[in-house]
Amino acid sequence: MKDESEIIDRVMARILANKPTAEAESEVNSLATEGKALTEFVGTAPIGDTIGLVIANVDADLAAKMGLDQKYRSIGVVSARTGASPQVMAVDEAVKATNTEVVSVEMPRDTKTGAGHGSLITIGGEDVSDVRRAVEVALAATPKMFGDIYANDAGDIEMQYTARASYACNKAFGAPIGRAYGLVCGAPAGIGVIMADTAVKAANVDIISYASPSKGTSLSNEAMIHISGDSGAVRQAVIAAREIGIKLLSTMGAEPKNQHPSYI
Amino acid sequence: MKDESEIIDRVMARILANKPTAEAESEVNSLATEGKALTEFVGTAPIGDTIGLVIANVDADLAAKMGLDQKYRSIGVVSARTGASPQVMAVDEAVKATNTEVVSVEMPRDTKTGAGHGSLITIGGEDVSDVRRAVEVALAATPKMFGDIYANDAGDIEMQYTARASYACNKAFGAPIGRAYGLVCGAPAGIGVIMADTAVKAANVDIISYASPSKGTSLSNEAMIHISGDSGAVRQAVIAAREIGIKLLSTMGAEPKNQHPSYI
Amino acid sequence: MKDESEIIDRVMARILANKPTAEAESEVNSLATEGKALTEFVGTAPIGDTIGLVIANVDADLAAKMGLDQKYRSIGVVSARTGASPQVMAVDEAVKATNTEVVSVEMPRDTKTGAGHGSLITIGGEDVSDVRRAVEVALAATPKMFGDIYANDAGDIEMQYTARASYACNKAFGAPIGRAYGLVCGAPAGIGVIMADTAVKAANVDIISYASPSKGTSLSNEAMIHISGDSGAVRQAVIAAREIGIKLLSTMGAEPKNQHPSYI
Repeated sequence: MKDESEIIDRVMARILANKPTAEAESEVNSLATEGKALTEFVGTAPIGDTIGLVIANVDADLAAKMGLDQKYRSIGVVSARTGASPQVMAVDEAVKATNTEVVSVEMPRDTKTGAGHGSLITIGGEDVSDVRRAVEVALAATPKMFGDIYANDAGDIEMQYTARASYACNKAFGAPIGRAYGLVCGAPAGIGVIMADTAVKAANVDIISYASPSKGTSLSNEAMIHISGDSGAVRQAVIAAREIGIKLLSTMGAEPKNQHPSYI
Repeated sequence: MKDESEIIDRVMARILANKPTAEAESEVNSLATEGKALTEFVGTAPIGDTIGLVIANVDADLAAKMGLDQKYRSIGVVSARTGASPQVMAVDEAVKATNTEVVSVEMPRDTKTGAGHGSLITIGGEDVSDVRRAVEVALAATPKMFGDIYANDAGDIEMQYTARASYACNKAFGAPIGRAYGLVCGAPAGIGVIMADTAVKAANVDIISYASPSKGTSLSNEAMIHISGDSGAVRQAVIAAREIGIKLLSTMGAEPKNQHPSYI
Repeated sequence: MKDESEIIDRVMARILANKPTAEAESEVNSLATEGKALTEFVGTAPIGDTIGLVIANVDADLAAKMGLDQKYRSIGVVSARTGASPQVMAVDEAVKATNTEVVSVEMPRDTKTGAGHGSLITIGGEDVSDVRRAVEVALAATPKMFGDIYANDAGDIEMQYTARASYACNKAFGAPIGRAYGLVCGAPAGIGVIMADTAVKAANVDIISYASPSKGTSLSNEAMIHISGDSGAVRQAVIAAREIGIKLLSTMGAEPKNQHPSYI
């Protein structure tokens, strides 16, 4: 029965690679085309089930119930099932590049079967074209920011770094604006604890905060530190954490993989 | 290798359709029969991993620890892995039809791999036969209430509507009793934001409340509004939200499908 | 097409049994070996994606941000994607057997696609060899403590029992130290409600506390009671709950299975 075994292996490989069948792909029908033609639709990023949306004039009653400041006529939304830090970093780039502000960052307990967060980030501006442009920039930057997330079936490790944090990193993670910022995060949470300890021993950095399942996360199975300081030191700390994190996560399963090239 | 490819496609189709094998089905053994014979077991609904249960006389110590009002000798329970609003709407019908009350509505962060909630709804009454009848009615009504939940792999959108809200909608969502009530909800949460804005612009309705990952949900990846008002207006708002929600969710994956016929 | 059907059934059986392909297994590469050589790595348990780690000298700044008492130079960590009570019980054995203390017990909302918790348990001591030994004992005891967790696709039921609770059970569940302690838990939560009522009617035990999705859990889809009292009574209550729990969960799917032999 060698043939059967071969077929089974190929099917299993395909399932593990999570490739949809032709049938499933063909289900993406004309409704998607209609969706993409809506004025509210900006685009999607090819990772994390990330969508970008915009409202030119938010309904006044809704804005009040949402707690939105009246000064934002237009809002943009970056929303994802998987990933909070990549989308936050991407929005950080977007607000640097446009005349917009970060209104709110919310982190649901999501990532589908994963251990972490999804995200709902709201961007505000006076002009809808500015807001739309910010969402476009954020969507374009999102894949890059997944570059230092390494995952296997047991968990994932997650690093972010910027030489100059802006308003999204500040709003979401308390990063001092204009200084270097780094994120060191591991799941299951125990791996994040070791990564954090390794990071702060590797270079002279300031710990902005520590977060774990019961504090500073949305009950996710992660431990993380947010760090700032000299850009070289922050980068060095993040890289040291990445090295030990990949090795520790490897003891629990397959070699952790990133889906986009590392940027740090 | 056309044959192999065909087989693989069929297997993948079957996996995507989530059909269990004959072997898995045969594992449902005599224990299930014993379970169904228990006086505490009322039944299951064929969707959402929903079970209905009843206790004729709750242990007094347990009732105290649960914070149950002493006046309820008998309690019924509707509990599900997937779905909060369908079961709430179903219990709403059940308490209208029986001499029972809604004691509590809790919404765990569940739906298995999904973005939303499960539910634990407790019904109280003086007579166990009333409570059992209420649970039966709720289980019977549950599939219908899944009719306006459309899902694909990226997320789901969820609508509910009643011309006359009763105690379950009031307890769970703050709906004014006796008035029309509607729910507009989308996941990932950004889609829910657009749906909410579309709904309130489509008709003259009152927003009871807005909920999002960090407020009013159990950290789910959803944004939603609860609305009330004139029954025609509420229905019109919900339908407008459904239309844009389906299109937006379509941009993220396959065409969203409902598992039961739409009732709105 | 009988052959094709047979192949499909075999593939489906293999998928349901969750067996990785040879390819996936071979991905466990040299990184894992490097990870196992790290001084921070203690080991893994073969269930629940459980890892044990140790830090000989926690960085002082990190310790402060984590809220760790200064008296613990060394900390051990038991961290898991699936399971809180098994790891808590295992750590309970570990602190009985070593000169260490339980510093904290956190319970993320995890279990991958399941209804319950993961865990992050921190153990403190003055000497790193004591802490390492405690983590080793905990990892070794973890599989046994999964013996009375029975699961199917719809949910799971979970029982724990010890004749003499120690510091981990006290810290995590409020169990009186030195007395018999039992846990009765079911998911979806409604099953846990019935199990709890059955347990306390089966024997004369004290209810330490009741927990459900909105109180005492991390928004998990579980209801549970923590009980104490005479060891025979606690054990009898737990066994009665197990019996009804298995039957009720059977009505929702396949026969619930435990992955290790029952120890209660």
